[in-house]
Amino acid sequence: MSGHRQLSGQIRETHVGEKVHLKGWVQKRRDLGGLIFIDLRDRSGVVQVVFNPERSSEALATADKVRSEYVIEVAGDVVARDEGAVNENLATGRVEVMADSISILNKSKNPPFQPQDDLDVAEELRLKYRYLDLRRNPMQETFKLRHKATQSIRNFLNDDDFLEMETPMLTKSTPEGARDYLVPSRVHEGDFYALPQSPQIFKQLIMMSGFEKYYQIARCFRDEDLRADRQPEFTQVDIETSFMSKDEIMDMTERMMKRVMKDVKDIELPTPFPRMKYDEAMERYGSDKPDTRFGLELVNVSDVVKASEFKVFKGAVESGGSVSAINVKGKASEFSRKDIDKLTEFVKIYDAKGLAWVKENEGELQGPIAKFLEDEVAAGLREALEIEEGDLILFVADKTSVVHESLGSLRQKLGRELGLIDESQFNFLWVTDWPLFEYDEDLDRYFAAHHPFTMPEREDIDKMSDQPGETKAQAYDLVLNGYELGGGSLRIYEKELQDKMFEVLGFSEEEAKDQFGFLLEALEYGAPPHGGIALGLDRFTMILAGRTNLRDTILFPKTASASDLLTQAPDSVSEEQLKELHLELNEKAKENQKNK
Amino acid sequence: MSGHRQLSGQIRETHVGEKVHLKGWVQKRRDLGGLIFIDLRDRSGVVQVVFNPERSSEALATADKVRSEYVIEVAGDVVARDEGAVNENLATGRVEVMADSISILNKSKNPPFQPQDDLDVAEELRLKYRYLDLRRNPMQETFKLRHKATQSIRNFLNDDDFLEMETPMLTKSTPEGARDYLVPSRVHEGDFYALPQSPQIFKQLIMMSGFEKYYQIARCFRDEDLRADRQPEFTQVDIETSFMSKDEIMDMTERMMKRVMKDVKDIELPTPFPRMKYDEAMERYGSDKPDTRFGLELVNVSDVVKASEFKVFKGAVESGGSVSAINVKGKASEFSRKDIDKLTEFVKIYDAKGLAWVKENEGELQGPIAKFLEDEVAAGLREALEIEEGDLILFVADKTSVVHESLGSLRQKLGRELGLIDESQFNFLWVTDWPLFEYDEDLDRYFAAHHPFTMPEREDIDKMSDQPGETKAQAYDLVLNGYELGGGSLRIYEKELQDKMFEVLGFSEEEAKDQFGFLLEALEYGAPPHGGIALGLDRFTMILAGRTNLRDTILFPKTASASDLLTQAPDSVSEEQLKELHLELNEKAKENQKNK
Repeated sequence: MSGHRQLSGQIRETHVGEKVHLKGWVQKRRDLGGLIFIDLRDRSGVVQVVFNPERSSEALATADKVRSEYVIEVAGDVVARDEGAVNENLATGRVEVMADSISILNKSKNPPFQPQDDLDVAEELRLKYRYLDLRRNPMQETFKLRHKATQSIRNFLNDDDFLEMETPMLTKSTPEGARDYLVPSRVHEGDFYALPQSPQIFKQLIMMSGFEKYYQIARCFRDEDLRADRQPEFTQVDIETSFMSKDEIMDMTERMMKRVMKDVKDIELPTPFPRMKYDEAMERYGSDKPDTRFGLELVNVSDVVKASEFKVFKGAVESGGSVSAINVKGKASEFSRKDIDKLTEFVKIYDAKGLAWVKENEGELQGPIAKFLEDEVAAGLREALEIEEGDLILFVADKTSVVHESLGSLRQKLGRELGLIDESQFNFLWVTDWPLFEYDEDLDRYFAAHHPFTMPEREDIDKMSDQPGETKAQAYDLVLNGYELGGGSLRIYEKELQDKMFEVLGFSEEEAKDQFGFLLEALEYGAPPHGGIALGLDRFTMILAGRTNLRDTILFPKTASASDLLTQAPDSVSEEQLKELHLELNEKAKENQKNK
Repeated sequence: MSGHRQLSGQIRETHVGEKVHLKGWVQKRRDLGGLIFIDLRDRSGVVQVVFNPERSSEALATADKVRSEYVIEVAGDVVARDEGAVNENLATGRVEVMADSISILNKSKNPPFQPQDDLDVAEELRLKYRYLDLRRNPMQETFKLRHKATQSIRNFLNDDDFLEMETPMLTKSTPEGARDYLVPSRVHEGDFYALPQSPQIFKQLIMMSGFEKYYQIARCFRDEDLRADRQPEFTQVDIETSFMSKDEIMDMTERMMKRVMKDVKDIELPTPFPRMKYDEAMERYGSDKPDTRFGLELVNVSDVVKASEFKVFKGAVESGGSVSAINVKGKASEFSRKDIDKLTEFVKIYDAKGLAWVKENEGELQGPIAKFLEDEVAAGLREALEIEEGDLILFVADKTSVVHESLGSLRQKLGRELGLIDESQFNFLWVTDWPLFEYDEDLDRYFAAHHPFTMPEREDIDKMSDQPGETKAQAYDLVLNGYELGGGSLRIYEKELQDKMFEVLGFSEEEAKDQFGFLLEALEYGAPPHGGIALGLDRFTMILAGRTNLRDTILFPKTASASDLLTQAPDSVSEEQLKELHLELNEKAKENQKNK
């Protein structure tokens, strides 16, 4: 067999009468009336190959030996299927290949699962046999989409005069932020590199190097306890520019997203994207990344209920907290007391003390707390929440942060469960006017809400020392369908301001110099005004592919305990390797290795 | 100042009369006759800005304050320069900008060196102030070229239906090969990840996953003692395909190179590239990566001289070694005895015992060994080496590996020093028919010459166990101007053959399973025939940019001791960080840290 190989999935009626030469995997084999039918799969799709004893008994005999996932090579003629045998669900369903010859290129044991579209096996098994899992059509499509999105982003940025540049992976550990992955140095005894949590400092240095427009599809690392939507290594589209304003960066990002949505989903995305201030997002959606595909908005009724004598409401407001509510429109009859009890359990996860509720029934608010609501309070709620017959109103009265988080999460849950979300929609949203600092109650200190290089609003600089909590950042997050797609900011480019930032964050002068001295020095040699954005490519792919598991968008992902089930990384290393790195395991680790 | 910003380097005579708004760095400031002239630099180039008291005394006063590398913003009118003031060496040399206003965006201290084209400072200083070094025009151009080459490669591969895919950075350590960089695991006590030396195994798994055509511009890591042309982290264009033959992969690579040379250098590269077997390359060039831009080829004269009674020659051949020579055409008179003594010292670096020589003078071979050469031997040499009047012939008689290495290196040195190399040429060459194994004399065992997954020639499989040194690999290296640009091979896709390979390499069954069990298992579930290639992007950029220092092609490179002089990585980490990773420094490392 020789000559140019064709792709199985591309054979059409126009090829009828042609000789073809195919290579691929046996998706399925059926024996029927002395014939053998093989669905032959390659990266382009599947075509049916028929072995007929009248054509070649030798080929039939070989075909009889093949099993699922064997790798074969076939030559034959393209013929039209009989009208009754046409399969309209298959792109190649109007044709089949009458085989003249077949070779077995490689065998396969019976696989632990068949690589079919609808697979129902434990994810652990899929990860262990990732190469079988990835043969499945939905996985192939996801990684083709990821490729397409990646190239679309690159093409946009290349056309916009950005330079793709590579920053180091073996960098310096900077404990501010998430936990670093460390890499011991063999040459410098006792020293370590750190894998980058992001190319943040390097991209700023690139701006100080005069390149003005940089991007990188960059691998980043965080050694954190993993939630379902986190991976120890992840990929971000990393962008930095000099001399551009916040609006110019946001506009550039919108044009990029417009191009990707057109290239990948053939959707004309309307721009500019809506913008919402952080405070408003928290107030209306209880979230800094609101999913605006559905309503169920939070309404702050503190002003209405503070006049009430109902202790739960009044108390929350008087102690500095607030009361917000969601109106679940017309769904009162769908929620039994038991259902609402479950919702109450749900909000308690977020530290809410409880969930109050009323239903509007025949012009009357009903429910356990209804009797505590004075007439004018009830009237105020009716107006604020636009209550109509059959509405269910859910309240949380608590510390404001708890009100937002619990009701915000409840809103998401109800939106999903009540089917309020249009899955075909892609709602982009900018969240702006972020706080510069976040207060950590346990440690009783302020941390950088984004990172310590974020530029404060110019008019807030005076507040940094005395009212850090009131200082706003020149930062912007891009939200898509309730996911944080990415975030960016203008950066500090003045040495004095960066010094002040470290001071507010509690760095001594020496600590700042020790950790970031090179950056502080670089700021003194003509650092241009600069800013940028970083977008999570794994998550973006997940949303574009309509998937919900981040691991389905990463080729060889890790589990929640940061293990690779396929290769069994991480793993033990030899004594000699440790010795070369000047390291010893501590007692506990030694014990653990002994017991392996 | 507001409105659209123009780029300094793009202003031309066609813009005369227009108002422009510029941002950038002060390259140079001159005061002349009450006026101030500033060369304003941005990523596009430089334009001259003039401050005139008659136009704005305020702007002049501000301009008087700026120094080199200040970041400024300027608005003004484009005017044509007087004929006498035109600078034809500058793209913007026919115009200048008469400034109406200027703002200082950021100041600069007097930099340790000026970012000018021709810089003569220690490389350490350039690396410490990398952001200043990178502002220099030659560096800007190198990274623009790197970007262009990268996109050209991507565009070719995208057009050829390859998918760009990302393989993990936190992988499993496999001690076969170079030394791994290790990453301690916090979750799995005493276990480590390894940073990939290449995505080799993962790209093979991608083929087993049915993707057929993969590429990645991949970061790779090797913890080796560094030579001038090595970096601890480097970038390779990593390509793998299923079902393609060796010739198809080489052809695809040639088409890719053709595209890059056209896109980046506007050169029409002739294809197919010449091919040379490994044995021939060693014999004719003394190198497995011959620079074919010049002659000075090695000629094996063992057969001629073995008849001689001259002990040095005869002895080398009789003890299994060989005698080769280079004819330095017409240069006899340019080499004094002293010069040749220096060449002798040079070949001794490569363990050669000496360098014999003769000169052809007035029809006679002259020199210390001439008297030992019988007439018929002299005649044989004349014929083999095409000796003419004025030629200098240099011989090495030794173990064949020493002959090749020493004369091959001498050839390179002479080619450079005699100016025989046409620097404008790009000579691509395939080196094929590589040995599958290399013998390590110290360890008395065979190692994989490329890696343990390389497919042997089918007809050599029987030799693997008994004559490993005679087994050829289905491997090919791409050589450009004497540099190894990259290499590839077909891979083993049959379980039994891979088992045999590990056996020859001295792995016990258990060791093979422990290290590569997942790969051996994957081979049993329908692994397709596959192969690929990997090309060094840093080195390719270096050659394309006409540079000789690999560090000039990497944005933030490391020194020979794997340090980043800018950020001071690697560095000490805290006790707490070590504790979280279940590690302790050994005594020596502790001592070293104490003394820092």
